[in-house]
Amino acid sequence: MNQPAIILVEPQLAENIGTAARAMLNFGLTRMRLVNPRPNWPSDRATEVSSGAGSVLENAEVFRSIADAVADCRVVYATSARPRDMVKEVVTPRLAAAELRQHEAADIPCGILFGPERTGLLNDDIALCDRVITVPLNPKFSSLNLAQAVLLVGYEWYQAAGAPPPDTFRYGDAAPADKLHLMSFTSRLEAELDECGFLRNSHMRPTMVRNIRAMFGRASLTDQEVRTLHGILTELVTKRLKP
Amino acid sequence: MNQPAIILVEPQLAENIGTAARAMLNFGLTRMRLVNPRPNWPSDRATEVSSGAGSVLENAEVFRSIADAVADCRVVYATSARPRDMVKEVVTPRLAAAELRQHEAADIPCGILFGPERTGLLNDDIALCDRVITVPLNPKFSSLNLAQAVLLVGYEWYQAAGAPPPDTFRYGDAAPADKLHLMSFTSRLEAELDECGFLRNSHMRPTMVRNIRAMFGRASLTDQEVRTLHGILTELVTKRLKP
Repeated sequence: MNQPAIILVEPQLAENIGTAARAMLNFGLTRMRLVNPRPNWPSDRATEVSSGAGSVLENAEVFRSIADAVADCRVVYATSARPRDMVKEVVTPRLAAAELRQHEAADIPCGILFGPERTGLLNDDIALCDRVITVPLNPKFSSLNLAQAVLLVGYEWYQAAGAPPPDTFRYGDAAPADKLHLMSFTSRLEAELDECGFLRNSHMRPTMVRNIRAMFGRASLTDQEVRTLHGILTELVTKRLKP
Repeated sequence: MNQPAIILVEPQLAENIGTAARAMLNFGLTRMRLVNPRPNWPSDRATEVSSGAGSVLENAEVFRSIADAVADCRVVYATSARPRDMVKEVVTPRLAAAELRQHEAADIPCGILFGPERTGLLNDDIALCDRVITVPLNPKFSSLNLAQAVLLVGYEWYQAAGAPPPDTFRYGDAAPADKLHLMSFTSRLEAELDECGFLRNSHMRPTMVRNIRAMFGRASLTDQEVRTLHGILTELVTKRLKP
């Protein structure tokens, strides 16, 4: 099962979870993950509105944090309707779909995050991701509901079956590290930076942490590279303690 | 305004008309037409669920028949989830979108028919159309609601702005006749065939009429060709009367 996990972050309404499940199954997507769903779960109402896609809901996995939900993923896409103040590559659903199919062929587990209905994903959530998917929409009227966003991403994923690879594509054996591994490094780095005082400005700290995560996230580091960074950090800290 | 008219045929629920309007405006489509809408019209409920796309609803045109709704169109697409027992070209939303953009550039008015929620379009409705749009869906779970079908067609139309023309494309100066003109011929032909007894088998008549319409519809006849056919029919009938 190399198809992408569809990860709904703090969905507010059972109706939206149900219609998202229906939209997923329309395009053969069955791996739903829920991060802190607001409705009581499992939800009869969600099953009702899923119009026959109850199997997707029954198999949905529930997580307490985004970090847990993406721990086994090596490539994670965020979805966002609006540009964010962050250096992060933005792709169309079509390009993302072609990439996802490549990942699939290379056995690279992927996930796609969809934010809560009212607010969308937080910048901190997006910083954890590799790329952002934005649906090209009428700039004067660009509100898309949760299930519609899932529908459009699923549609492109389904259409991209057997499609030629996108123009730019790296990898080979150099699959990116899974997020658990990557975050083990960035968390450790942040702890060390707290320790040495680099992050002492509490006002600036959230932005600095986010930018550090985005920077390392953007590099699509391999497992070996993450190990190297751990080694570098150990060296630096040890050297610092010595004198 | 050369964008395609989105024609909802006997929509049952105000909610679906409202969400279809919202999906249209998401992709800059504003020409809604309604054929015999079931809810009282105009509908406050539709405006409410359109989440700000009320302008599309206010400008929606209401018609009593599909024939009236497509009278000024020269190319009409039907949407259908399932194959029909009819010789009619079936295209994906993506190919249809590329074609629609070509029609637009050539000033050829187009319409897209969406059937009632429960039943979809009738075979007789589809026989009036030039081509059928079918969304490629999971064959084991292929129910799409009305607004979602509009959303996917609108999405492809929006993405196709400035796209290269599809691989096969005819026209030039040979724009197809508008449907009013074409139907003036097929109706007259049917009347003559009734008159001469060709359609006397009342059991077979509906299928025969549908096949005749589909055949002439499929030919994408130009105005001149329709005039020629009128001339041929006149000749044949007059000759028949003479001896």
